[in-house]
Amino acid sequence: MTYCVGLKLNAGLVLLSDTRTNAGLDNIACYRKMFFFETPGERVIAIMTAGSLSVTQTTLARLDEANEDEMADETTSILKAPTMLQVASIIGDTLSRTRREIADQCRELRQQASASMIVAGQRRGGDMRMFLIYPEGNFIEATEDTPFLQIGEHKYGKPILDRVVTPATSLADAQKAVLLSMDSTLRSNLSVGMPLDLAIIEKDACKVGARRRILEGDPDFMQMSAEWSAALRDSFVKVTI
Amino acid sequence: MTYCVGLKLNAGLVLLSDTRTNAGLDNIACYRKMFFFETPGERVIAIMTAGSLSVTQTTLARLDEANEDEMADETTSILKAPTMLQVASIIGDTLSRTRREIADQCRELRQQASASMIVAGQRRGGDMRMFLIYPEGNFIEATEDTPFLQIGEHKYGKPILDRVVTPATSLADAQKAVLLSMDSTLRSNLSVGMPLDLAIIEKDACKVGARRRILEGDPDFMQMSAEWSAALRDSFVKVTI
Repeated sequence: MTYCVGLKLNAGLVLLSDTRTNAGLDNIACYRKMFFFETPGERVIAIMTAGSLSVTQTTLARLDEANEDEMADETTSILKAPTMLQVASIIGDTLSRTRREIADQCRELRQQASASMIVAGQRRGGDMRMFLIYPEGNFIEATEDTPFLQIGEHKYGKPILDRVVTPATSLADAQKAVLLSMDSTLRSNLSVGMPLDLAIIEKDACKVGARRRILEGDPDFMQMSAEWSAALRDSFVKVTI
Repeated sequence: MTYCVGLKLNAGLVLLSDTRTNAGLDNIACYRKMFFFETPGERVIAIMTAGSLSVTQTTLARLDEANEDEMADETTSILKAPTMLQVASIIGDTLSRTRREIADQCRELRQQASASMIVAGQRRGGDMRMFLIYPEGNFIEATEDTPFLQIGEHKYGKPILDRVVTPATSLADAQKAVLLSMDSTLRSNLSVGMPLDLAIIEKDACKVGARRRILEGDPDFMQMSAEWSAALRDSFVKVTI
């Protein structure tokens, strides 16, 4: 399993992903699930991945290949695509093709192979946009009403986002919100695990700003988690019924 | 969908269920999901249900029939069974048989029919016990380490239980905990809906104590929900990262 969450706010994009992958409970590994494609000042594209690692790695490798291919044009390279919509469409097509091929390979063993992605970014002169790309290649976009997208184990971490995140949320509060959302998920689902990757892309910067890997036992994260637990217990005592 | 939660505490049993059933999003109805079988002072058995309504209703009807059958003995009537373990076993067998029959009927249309139950109670001279009965009829039991059981949409409401419920929790705090757990679930899953059924069975009373139906717009529930929202937002502001 996996938990990735992205916020699209007036002030910028805030992204957080875990790094745990597992093939059964007895086969756990650590893989990065957040990737950047960047021409600083010109365009920045972040991709977060969930699902079958063979599908997501192959999809990313193909996107990379297209970027390095001198023959690639704006319909195949996400670094040349003229809009974020076109970027989402290229990623969706690549994901869907890769997923189909691998699912065909797995059919004989009755194994499934699927994956989804969050794609967020901006190109100079365009708006910031954020999409959730489904395994079939179609996608939805974050809006004013629902400025966040989640993939993987989304349920445990959704209530806090529902309560505190709006497009006007500051980047500092947004960081706190995604970390608390992750904290609830880490507590309840063993297949979501540290370390975490956190990134912030400020509006119109067209490059990755703050980027941080939060390791197991990170003192700031542990303190936040403990403070939140204590605050919840205090709140519980105060609420009346 | 459904959300039912039961706590087994030193002081007694606390049970909460919603009442929404749905066959597709366009076919929503209200059905009780909490049932009691009681010989006050002698034995009390509560059953909460999740899953296919045809399976749960038929299972309960069969349990009822066995209780009214003069020929029924301690191996078939949950009002005559000598232990709560035997009660769980009778309910598991009835559920599993009913589920299999209905699943066979549904096979042609490739529809699924399944259900699970929480069974909690006590007979005079025995301990309070609480079981989660799976569709196949096997079951697990609440323990000191994990004094709560959930069926249906369990994820949204689990974090608050994890944080505040222990066997030593008072019945008043336990009521608050299950109602807040339900509040988080109601906010996030449309297929869980008001009204709610709440029941408390005090230890060694061997009868249902407080029993309350909480209707849509209940002022106490609304106030608790608003206070909790406000407290969470306050806590969010205070936590540092």
